[in-house]
Amino acid sequence: MPRVAVVGATGAVGGVTVDLLLERGFDDISLLASARSAGSEVRGMRVEEATPESFGAFDVCFFSVGSTASRELVPHALRGGALCIDKSEAFRLEPGIPLVVPEVNGDRALEHSGLIANPNCSTIPLTLVLKPLLDAAGLRSVRVATYQSVSGKGAQRLQQLLDEPQAEHDLSVDWTHDGEEFDEEAKIREETRKILELPELPVSATCVRVPVPVGHAESVWVETERPLTPDEARELLGAAPSVRLEDFPTPGQAAGGDEALVGRIRRDSATANGLALHLACDNLRKGAALNGIQIAELVLSHRAVAA
Amino acid sequence: MPRVAVVGATGAVGGVTVDLLLERGFDDISLLASARSAGSEVRGMRVEEATPESFGAFDVCFFSVGSTASRELVPHALRGGALCIDKSEAFRLEPGIPLVVPEVNGDRALEHSGLIANPNCSTIPLTLVLKPLLDAAGLRSVRVATYQSVSGKGAQRLQQLLDEPQAEHDLSVDWTHDGEEFDEEAKIREETRKILELPELPVSATCVRVPVPVGHAESVWVETERPLTPDEARELLGAAPSVRLEDFPTPGQAAGGDEALVGRIRRDSATANGLALHLACDNLRKGAALNGIQIAELVLSHRAVAA
Repeated sequence: MPRVAVVGATGAVGGVTVDLLLERGFDDISLLASARSAGSEVRGMRVEEATPESFGAFDVCFFSVGSTASRELVPHALRGGALCIDKSEAFRLEPGIPLVVPEVNGDRALEHSGLIANPNCSTIPLTLVLKPLLDAAGLRSVRVATYQSVSGKGAQRLQQLLDEPQAEHDLSVDWTHDGEEFDEEAKIREETRKILELPELPVSATCVRVPVPVGHAESVWVETERPLTPDEARELLGAAPSVRLEDFPTPGQAAGGDEALVGRIRRDSATANGLALHLACDNLRKGAALNGIQIAELVLSHRAVAA
Repeated sequence: MPRVAVVGATGAVGGVTVDLLLERGFDDISLLASARSAGSEVRGMRVEEATPESFGAFDVCFFSVGSTASRELVPHALRGGALCIDKSEAFRLEPGIPLVVPEVNGDRALEHSGLIANPNCSTIPLTLVLKPLLDAAGLRSVRVATYQSVSGKGAQRLQQLLDEPQAEHDLSVDWTHDGEEFDEEAKIREETRKILELPELPVSATCVRVPVPVGHAESVWVETERPLTPDEARELLGAAPSVRLEDFPTPGQAAGGDEALVGRIRRDSATANGLALHLACDNLRKGAALNGIQIAELVLSHRAVAA
């Protein structure tokens, strides 16, 4: 069994990573976090402080910390010989570093030099749904409006929602912006382009935080290169890995599950080859922790075969 | 002062209608509702049962009841000589019945034969924002993803949200559907076409209910016939009636106000003349009660001038 470290174990994604690792049979798990969180417990296991010296003895390190901490700590883990799966945006768009959704571009994971980036929580289900449409009919453009749950902003933001009077619930603006575009919207565009290997694909995203605890939803308009009926799209998506058809996908249905739910597939009459659809996905599981573990399992299974 | 009746006075829109009428100086207000609600009080005024015999002595009747009740009661009010402003979908698409947002197509109100329909709460702010863009550059297509608050479903649904544990909040499906399209989505398309007098305009809407008490938001992609820069659109919208520019419009900011807030105006690179923008509006006020009162005021002021 590989020796695994979860860095950022006290965070929302870190906790789910620990749960999923235990569920999947990993039994040599170390928990690391900032000095502030060191000494606390997660699932009955003690959390140690992550320092440059922490990374001598791991086969795989899952990082779910901020970009600054990832930039500081990942190099130490790489020097220690660990396969690093990083959930921050620090390395996602760096040339030569694979950005991977296993069902979409799993082959890229095998080209790693120690570090593989785990995409944004909205990008992962979007590419799961776009890939079968791309393969069948090409993609001309994507427009997406997100409904992102507060757990995507972290455990503290989730607690804040739970503590807030319902009457104060609002849609909120949790991202920084460059001009009129949020960094989150640029991430969805640039990461989708990198994962699908379509560097020029027009992707216009509007990101909105909704007062829902867990599960992101997305309303998507897709223009394909070649005609694709809603029925054909439904058939393709029904057969796609980690995608499940639902009449009316909601975050509540998706939460706790491992798949992207997709439905409401219909014609968008604004353009010749237009489709509209709606999806929902657990942002902590397939949108984050699960995707990271699946990347690691893919690489580990390949090593096992190679050996 | 005109003798005014509010039919459906115990509902979410009815209560706001009463508030706004009082604010605006109306002082002869009768409250009507179903037999079940008769005898209760709204803003200290007694609610009477609405029956076919209720409508003998009103100048204006505001109906905010379901379609079935509107279809039953509006003809009696018309026979009684009242100007009827109906918020239900019963008459909105009937040829010859004006469907009016005063700032957009106020002239149509003056062509009424006693009955004027008040549009859907998502359609009203959408057309307020589209009209200046249409006048300046023509419209080729509209895509819209809604974030609709629970008060749009009524006072009971609002109370249900306030009573529900936060951890159970989800995006929900509150509409009926015909195939893959919700009736709410068809309303947005057909009403927008009627109000803007563009019967062929492609309008693709995806409607989602969010756990927010009051205020609807909409993410919109607009394709214009002629080029329009984001700066030009911003200038047009900044000068448009009942529209206010905001950097990041949210339902919470819009709630209690009389304007549609619009912002995040930027290029949509998927098409030559594409713009993306985001709007928010109080669904009970400008999205419903206020728009209805403004329609009545427009007609009444015209009568005064004519007399």
